[in-house]
Amino acid sequence: MTAWIWGAGSSTFGRQTDKLPAQLAWRALQEALADAAISRVEAAFVGTVFGTLGVAQRALSGVGLTGIPIISVENACASGSTALHEAHAAITSGRYESVIALGVEHLTSLFDGPIALDPTDREQATGLLFPGIYAMSASRYMHDHGASPEDLAQVAVKNSRHGSENPRAQRKRALTLEEVLASRLIADPLTLYQCAGLSDAAAAIIVGSERRTSRDVALRASVLRSGGPWDHASEHVWGYDIVRDTARDVYRASGIGPADLDVVELHDAFTIGELVTLEALGLADDGAAPAAMGAGRFSIGGAQPVNPSGGLLSRGHPLGATGVAQAAELVWQLRGDAGSRQVEGARTGLLETMGGGTAGLDGNACVVAMLEAT
Amino acid sequence: MTAWIWGAGSSTFGRQTDKLPAQLAWRALQEALADAAISRVEAAFVGTVFGTLGVAQRALSGVGLTGIPIISVENACASGSTALHEAHAAITSGRYESVIALGVEHLTSLFDGPIALDPTDREQATGLLFPGIYAMSASRYMHDHGASPEDLAQVAVKNSRHGSENPRAQRKRALTLEEVLASRLIADPLTLYQCAGLSDAAAAIIVGSERRTSRDVALRASVLRSGGPWDHASEHVWGYDIVRDTARDVYRASGIGPADLDVVELHDAFTIGELVTLEALGLADDGAAPAAMGAGRFSIGGAQPVNPSGGLLSRGHPLGATGVAQAAELVWQLRGDAGSRQVEGARTGLLETMGGGTAGLDGNACVVAMLEAT
Repeated sequence: MTAWIWGAGSSTFGRQTDKLPAQLAWRALQEALADAAISRVEAAFVGTVFGTLGVAQRALSGVGLTGIPIISVENACASGSTALHEAHAAITSGRYESVIALGVEHLTSLFDGPIALDPTDREQATGLLFPGIYAMSASRYMHDHGASPEDLAQVAVKNSRHGSENPRAQRKRALTLEEVLASRLIADPLTLYQCAGLSDAAAAIIVGSERRTSRDVALRASVLRSGGPWDHASEHVWGYDIVRDTARDVYRASGIGPADLDVVELHDAFTIGELVTLEALGLADDGAAPAAMGAGRFSIGGAQPVNPSGGLLSRGHPLGATGVAQAAELVWQLRGDAGSRQVEGARTGLLETMGGGTAGLDGNACVVAMLEAT
Repeated sequence: MTAWIWGAGSSTFGRQTDKLPAQLAWRALQEALADAAISRVEAAFVGTVFGTLGVAQRALSGVGLTGIPIISVENACASGSTALHEAHAAITSGRYESVIALGVEHLTSLFDGPIALDPTDREQATGLLFPGIYAMSASRYMHDHGASPEDLAQVAVKNSRHGSENPRAQRKRALTLEEVLASRLIADPLTLYQCAGLSDAAAAIIVGSERRTSRDVALRASVLRSGGPWDHASEHVWGYDIVRDTARDVYRASGIGPADLDVVELHDAFTIGELVTLEALGLADDGAAPAAMGAGRFSIGGAQPVNPSGGLLSRGHPLGATGVAQAAELVWQLRGDAGSRQVEGARTGLLETMGGGTAGLDGNACVVAMLEAT
């Protein structure tokens, strides 16, 4: 069922120690409200992982949105897209006629290295944080498909080139393959520039129950799935199965398939993530994503540009804000408002995030949503 | 619109350092699923404030509920009731036909004193944590209504008497007025036994779209409101206005008014909270709650028993679990399953929680829900 995106906004991304989380949110909310030309919605769904108590209320009351029901949601790296998913469900189920999906995160005030999640978890205590788990995925992928370190590193090269055209991006410099490969080793084979950094940002999307103008973007479908511990035992690299299954549901619900996609924003918290996700989404055959990327297929100017914003690697990855920021980028792309990083003629856009799953006993979450210009 | 509660469960409450959060959740989930005589639901809404990443997935996959959409929600002390509220909305909007509302919190592993929320907040840095803000409410209430320290302390006496009949309660000893008044001063005029302690627990409620048996309890209405900074400037004590307005909506939606209530579970994180809430709910005139309580009106055996579980003060207040535990207590009461703390003939029950609001710039959240035996 279709909901309609009336407005989008975001703060800039990066280390912003001079700003409180609510201040970042105010920037995103003001832009989204002005874009939608409204001052009021009926409810708010707020994605944040480490946001302190009251940050959602403070963010919304700061732009005059006090009194409405506010529901903060969390799903690890998919927290922002979970807020979008709940906004979509609230509209399509007829619960509300206008809502905001807000994402906000301020990681640099909380962490000084890899994000630590659960001090009681024994696997994490041994070092199995996100870089470690993605590094194991990368090793497995390289073994399965004969991929090289360069195959991984080119993801960061492409996304940094895209990000260099995004004035809101955290990493604004286009990196060379040599720079990516020579950067500090974080978790073999992943080097520093193959890992998303800590980021502070907010993003907001306003979703309504009717199409009001030709600038409104259709939110054709949104699917949220949770995975399980056995995902680690799949014949595919970890994460592949849940992304494939979630995307399949979205393709079916929207009637838009992978071949129809004009632009994609997906979860490249680590370079290997983008390769695996491209294949799970059906944008490349298993093991074929590196060659297709090398041929320019997923670059701006190519057939199916992926992460024109710079992705999590270059725009930044402020957990709760990420999924909402992906939606904002797609809105700008589908309206033709993306400036020097515009994907020409883009009419359909897909976003994907995957959250959690560090520990063997945990499941993870995946959200895939389909947007379309109208 | 009515949803139906098919099952309820909870862990015990208290300091449970030998158990992981997920283990507490498994206990609650197993009891609720067995009570509902089902093994599967379509989605889960999980209330937790400080739950670490993945706790919801770990909790649900541990009882075989892997793969379903899991949405963790947060609204400070109202996080559990927000999960219940979202479960209610998911059913009544037709989004799902069966869902779980789970609440889980493990505070003793994280805190060793009053809960600290936002290190960037200047008011909190001056000591304005929850005990402080409720102490100011108590002082204001005493000034406005000529209430005495004994008027406040009797709330803890009543709820500890109720809690002494609850085998799951954290504080199992019935306290005397002298003990409450003589306990350590936390924030004048509130003494130790007038403040809910740190607690670890989980609770679960299964909500469905149809009435299956006579044991099913109707969830007639649920309303979530957010407040604003101006609540502190009301002519009433802080929190009164939002509780009054939220309850009014629930009374209207359910057709059940304050005079019709047989049993109430409300937010007594501090003794003053119960007095203010009783008046805001319309169970006593402004300033009249202490006298009515003194006359036994709100005790088990009285006209309208309040917090038969022991309330947050004695059963315990594990933030994300609290609202769900309130619902579980009402289910047991409305079925006549509450043992020695049974409210005889209870047919209607109301729950209320209020979350957040420590800082002047924040808003808070209030959830009120109406349950009825059928």
